[in-house]
Amino acid sequence: MDHPLTAALDTGLSGDDVQAAATWLADHAVRTPVVRSASLDAIAGTRLWLKAENLQTSGSYKFRGALRAVSRIAHEGRGTGVIAQSTGNHALAVAVAATRYGLSATLVLPADAAPTKIAKVEEAGGEVVLAGTTVDERLEVVEQLRAATGHPVVDAYDHPDVIAGQGSAAWELVEQAARRGTRLDAIVIPVGGGGGVAGTCLAVEGQDIAVYGVEPVGCDSLRRSLADRQRVAVPPAPTIADGLRPSLVGRLPFDIARTRLAGALTVDDEAIAQALCLTLFHTRLLVEPSAAAGLAGALQLAAGTSMENVGVVLTGGNVEPAVLARLVADYVPPAGGDNGGRLRDKG
Amino acid sequence: MDHPLTAALDTGLSGDDVQAAATWLADHAVRTPVVRSASLDAIAGTRLWLKAENLQTSGSYKFRGALRAVSRIAHEGRGTGVIAQSTGNHALAVAVAATRYGLSATLVLPADAAPTKIAKVEEAGGEVVLAGTTVDERLEVVEQLRAATGHPVVDAYDHPDVIAGQGSAAWELVEQAARRGTRLDAIVIPVGGGGGVAGTCLAVEGQDIAVYGVEPVGCDSLRRSLADRQRVAVPPAPTIADGLRPSLVGRLPFDIARTRLAGALTVDDEAIAQALCLTLFHTRLLVEPSAAAGLAGALQLAAGTSMENVGVVLTGGNVEPAVLARLVADYVPPAGGDNGGRLRDKG
Repeated sequence: MDHPLTAALDTGLSGDDVQAAATWLADHAVRTPVVRSASLDAIAGTRLWLKAENLQTSGSYKFRGALRAVSRIAHEGRGTGVIAQSTGNHALAVAVAATRYGLSATLVLPADAAPTKIAKVEEAGGEVVLAGTTVDERLEVVEQLRAATGHPVVDAYDHPDVIAGQGSAAWELVEQAARRGTRLDAIVIPVGGGGGVAGTCLAVEGQDIAVYGVEPVGCDSLRRSLADRQRVAVPPAPTIADGLRPSLVGRLPFDIARTRLAGALTVDDEAIAQALCLTLFHTRLLVEPSAAAGLAGALQLAAGTSMENVGVVLTGGNVEPAVLARLVADYVPPAGGDNGGRLRDKG
Repeated sequence: MDHPLTAALDTGLSGDDVQAAATWLADHAVRTPVVRSASLDAIAGTRLWLKAENLQTSGSYKFRGALRAVSRIAHEGRGTGVIAQSTGNHALAVAVAATRYGLSATLVLPADAAPTKIAKVEEAGGEVVLAGTTVDERLEVVEQLRAATGHPVVDAYDHPDVIAGQGSAAWELVEQAARRGTRLDAIVIPVGGGGGVAGTCLAVEGQDIAVYGVEPVGCDSLRRSLADRQRVAVPPAPTIADGLRPSLVGRLPFDIARTRLAGALTVDDEAIAQALCLTLFHTRLLVEPSAAAGLAGALQLAAGTSMENVGVVLTGGNVEPAVLARLVADYVPPAGGDNGGRLRDKG
């Protein structure tokens, strides 16, 4: 390990935990493909390696961390049920994971959650509790449920198994690119509570791969926390990336990412919408706005650097039909060939 | 081989040709994933194994046959360029394949081809000639170009390399399901000129796997040809599945499929649109209407049989943004759980 002081000592987590999670998940989750698109590369001006976690069980990479955490709870006999809160993907992932191990799952969703999200969680076997619109309101209900039932809580990001599980997506991405003869210069991943970006930092431990987090404008708790060297809460601004709205990056994720992250990028809704449609029509993958934020960040990064190979974790694909219809109707394809020359210059 | 009289003797093509194509393409095309969805299975009432050829190079399985044919032309020194006609995917596939081997490609597209399809072929390095709106009009121009240049023609379906190449998608699908411990009961694939369905029949030679072709209402040349025991031309009716409008199934494909096909299914535009949106929101894959016709056929098949495992070749994902916006805006998700019981009864 290159950074002994920042690896295992501070947080108790290291790249070994991600590798262990990846090895275990190889037999328990979908090994999602890494998708390439020559036409998207031409637009980006760099080679993009897209880890299609929208094809993961439950439709997002959250399944990795949820399954890892729930399986341990089941194997260690720590409860007959689990509790979790999220705006959607983590709740769905925990519901699916709990069903697989015969545990009950109680999921606390925002009172204004989309009906199709609620339906998906219920179809997966989860019990839905609607409560409040902020993380704090939901966490209060989670604590009440925990006190009443004794069931363990699977936090959406401030949880070592969740961080290691989420990191396994980047771990696979690095390995899949290497099998095709490519060392990635960077990996870009969207940031909500920070579990994924922290896991990605651990996944590339000891390798010369820069990790970038991406946040929507006005939801940049990680960026401000890095600048202030302490966690800074940001009252979330409206964004179409509804999975990236936690007001405060998690404690454990921040402790892991603060010394390892290459940078935190910020993208607006217009860039996110464009990235979603570019992904849809150039790779034929449906991603949700929160996942498209990662590609939007990668495009921003590629425009300002000479990086040749950039990995992006397409974190999920759970999007409301009405939202997608609007974004696609408004889509204006980029003028052809703008950046094709740049890509060719890079070789 | 179980059917010696119908295999190699009549057409000169057998399962061995598909296997040889599949082995060669393993190193030259994308090994696309087979995608599963528990929620889509519940709607279908059977287990669906979806071969995601929308993730193939050029966005459709047509690349398999095109690359196989073009590589042979290149290696055998049969020309410095190639000629092809199609409504879109085959033309794009040939353009990409020709560029890979340093050959020129002249592609004859319909005069009313969508601008984005023309742009994609040109971006891939192909020269586009717009001519007529029917296959016969385009074939006349193809013949003129061939006479003028001497370049060989890569027919979209009446070509042994194209049929064997297209069949490699089904060959991989069978193999990928087998690796996950499953023998498919059937494979369903949409039918335009019949190259894919013929290749699929060859791919499953000697195995107890039923092959079904799917045609849009009013574009059912294969179905009528099977009934009449000879090829019957059908003036194509309007359909959103623009890749499935050839008026006459190919000679070689018909000779292969006539004795081997389990049946030809017919689907209407409403069923195709619904299948496209079901694929999009349940598997997070963007498929074009012509590919969605395959799933629509599989849903029809599953509703009327007790088949437990049905493979579908999702043949491509090249769809116009305006078309997709309209289909998604009109999408009405099915009422939940209708067929869940059926699936559980079977499994």
